[in-house]
Amino acid sequence: MDSSQIRVGLLGCGHVGGALVSLLAERADDIEARTGLRLTLSKVAVRNLGKERDVDVPAGLLTHDAHSVVDDPDIDVVVELIGGIEPARGLILDALKAGKPVVTGNKELLANVGTELFEASRLSGAELAYEASVAGALPVIRLLRESLAGEHITRIMGIVNGTTNYILTRMGEESISYSEALAEAQSLGFAERDPTADVEGFDAGAKAAIIARIAFGVDVVAGDVYREGIADVTLADLDFAKRLGYVVKLLAIAERHQGGPIAVRVHPAMLDKSHPLAGVRGSFNAVFVEGDALGELMLYGRGAGGKPSASAVLGDLIDVARGVGAGPGLAVNGRQGFMAPAPARIKPMDELSSQYYINIVVADRPGVLATVAAVFGRHGVSIRSMEQADLGGEARLIFISHSALESDMQATLHELRLLDCVERIGGLLRVMGSG
Amino acid sequence: MDSSQIRVGLLGCGHVGGALVSLLAERADDIEARTGLRLTLSKVAVRNLGKERDVDVPAGLLTHDAHSVVDDPDIDVVVELIGGIEPARGLILDALKAGKPVVTGNKELLANVGTELFEASRLSGAELAYEASVAGALPVIRLLRESLAGEHITRIMGIVNGTTNYILTRMGEESISYSEALAEAQSLGFAERDPTADVEGFDAGAKAAIIARIAFGVDVVAGDVYREGIADVTLADLDFAKRLGYVVKLLAIAERHQGGPIAVRVHPAMLDKSHPLAGVRGSFNAVFVEGDALGELMLYGRGAGGKPSASAVLGDLIDVARGVGAGPGLAVNGRQGFMAPAPARIKPMDELSSQYYINIVVADRPGVLATVAAVFGRHGVSIRSMEQADLGGEARLIFISHSALESDMQATLHELRLLDCVERIGGLLRVMGSG
Repeated sequence: MDSSQIRVGLLGCGHVGGALVSLLAERADDIEARTGLRLTLSKVAVRNLGKERDVDVPAGLLTHDAHSVVDDPDIDVVVELIGGIEPARGLILDALKAGKPVVTGNKELLANVGTELFEASRLSGAELAYEASVAGALPVIRLLRESLAGEHITRIMGIVNGTTNYILTRMGEESISYSEALAEAQSLGFAERDPTADVEGFDAGAKAAIIARIAFGVDVVAGDVYREGIADVTLADLDFAKRLGYVVKLLAIAERHQGGPIAVRVHPAMLDKSHPLAGVRGSFNAVFVEGDALGELMLYGRGAGGKPSASAVLGDLIDVARGVGAGPGLAVNGRQGFMAPAPARIKPMDELSSQYYINIVVADRPGVLATVAAVFGRHGVSIRSMEQADLGGEARLIFISHSALESDMQATLHELRLLDCVERIGGLLRVMGSG
Repeated sequence: MDSSQIRVGLLGCGHVGGALVSLLAERADDIEARTGLRLTLSKVAVRNLGKERDVDVPAGLLTHDAHSVVDDPDIDVVVELIGGIEPARGLILDALKAGKPVVTGNKELLANVGTELFEASRLSGAELAYEASVAGALPVIRLLRESLAGEHITRIMGIVNGTTNYILTRMGEESISYSEALAEAQSLGFAERDPTADVEGFDAGAKAAIIARIAFGVDVVAGDVYREGIADVTLADLDFAKRLGYVVKLLAIAERHQGGPIAVRVHPAMLDKSHPLAGVRGSFNAVFVEGDALGELMLYGRGAGGKPSASAVLGDLIDVARGVGAGPGLAVNGRQGFMAPAPARIKPMDELSSQYYINIVVADRPGVLATVAAVFGRHGVSIRSMEQADLGGEARLIFISHSALESDMQATLHELRLLDCVERIGGLLRVMGSG
């Protein structure tokens, strides 16, 4: 039997693209022996032809004209690793319309204009594969799309941003401050010079939208995701969490509610230390899935980095290359589903319930607890536990609530801030995973 | 667009089969909406037509003639959940030869006569899917076959038997004896009345063979797997493990050695408590994969039970049903690979290296340590740490070795047993995951 020759056009040769070039060279023989597919790099589009690269790309393959790669009739599959919205969007649309499958790792693009791209894929029958867009080498997309295709998924919780998990791990285990941990992450290359996308939860939010789309079969975009970052998490919160048997994680959560609406959100949360996600330390990622039949399932591994992400791209590449061999028949029931997904009905944050950890800095005088407790009571937020603590000369009341509506909790906080005896709300975290 | 009708013939309607019947009824509408595939149960072969079942199977579907299901030209896909070697083997071969894809959860069959079945699938182009054969709802097979198709996997370590993990967890956390923990597992339905297949490692060994085959692309059978069970693990071993910073797990390990040979083994091991597998408690399963590009990856979840296994079968069913729609083109580069795998070159246990924990019951008199240490030295086994302990009136020497050859360790034990001052070897465990 002859092997099928699959000619790959690569757009972008940065961190992940460069790792993919090396990995393809290294693994091509073995892949051919196992699959009968000969993956050959045919063209590589880069912005700057003269730039020094970590990897040797044969000079004849390089071009600065990305459109010439997409339009080349000899290219079978396009891999987009440019990032950002344009020109990636236009290039991918052109490729799909020409019937060429596309592999991308571009979460920003998918979370913002995914609807348009997935529809183009569905109509042309050319696959759009995007495993590397969520949690690097962790095959989250394939898990949800294929292995759990028959499953009724109720909730997904993920640690999908390595930078923030590194920072929170260091703060929690070494008691260093947020800014020290951030500086450390930057010096190690885990965080960008401008860390906004990571620490404010934008990166995790884009991934949450992609996960919710595939898990629930509805059209979710980044704007549907409620989002809070980690910049306000303090060492005091982490210390209290530890004492109470919790760890603090930035969680991306997508859940399906009774009757169909879904909620998608990213925020720091206190997680019971016996929860499998609680043991995910440093820059590792994990995705925890709850379903009716399967119970609980977790994927854990390296979420970022050139090599893990390139490994995910290569898995997708082999997968779509198999489809190229199989002809157009596959497209009917292919990757993007049978029908275009309906827009998601989003349950707003205000209507969600959670347990809360609230850390309130108060005046140190008698009667304050009664005054504060009365505010909780008026808004129907019932208290599970309370302790008084003195921290750096400040008197604090630490509450853990029973499950309460977000809107009631926010009304409570609003009224607390108006009290004379309350200096400030020192911290607020939702408590997850303890039932 | 019209949906494709996929008629499913089920062989066996026990624990997993019954759960599949329910799950199919529950999920069929949703699966059709998402994939365009209408999965319809057409026939169910059972041994005893009159038996009471947990699930209502329409009487018209039941037959006691499994061959009539396989031979029925109206059946598109066969699901084999009978278990054991015959008649499952013959039925699957007939189905594959007739070009019908087969979904099975039969690990015993695959580990023993997999070579023949996979070859039949490869030749006919009809898929043989077997996700449910390893670790229930955990999509280990798909992870290795598809997501990591481009990856150079170096080692896989798994906790793939829920019964033994439950027993070891209870012994370690509650200090109850092996026989008490086993009785508890039996009363909870986690262990069979005859627990041999679980506690002696046969079940984990079959799964290890299947995992090694798919991870390394070679032909591995159950007989290639070195195997030790957990019946000799004592509370004393678990206590020492805890004190030294370890937990004890029954691990299935498949690894690729320099130059190509592979080693596949099942034995209890001491695992550093910071290792992600160390947190896998009770009847949960997990598979930890190490690869060149991806680094580390772990899948964690419910390994057994009717519903999780049925969920895995349903995922496979949707997958092969998509292939039925796509026509024969897919088979060329399909599930069983391009070429028949070569027989594995197996590296024998004697040639593997490991660190060891050795617990020796000795006579309580001066000079014993020197005598014992000399035996280690003579066989080139170097000691990392030693402590003396008194346990129930017995004097013990507890050693942790540096990495040593298995053959040298066995020679050491042999000579130790001949010493006057050694009453017996109280425990031997390999130490994994600490570098």
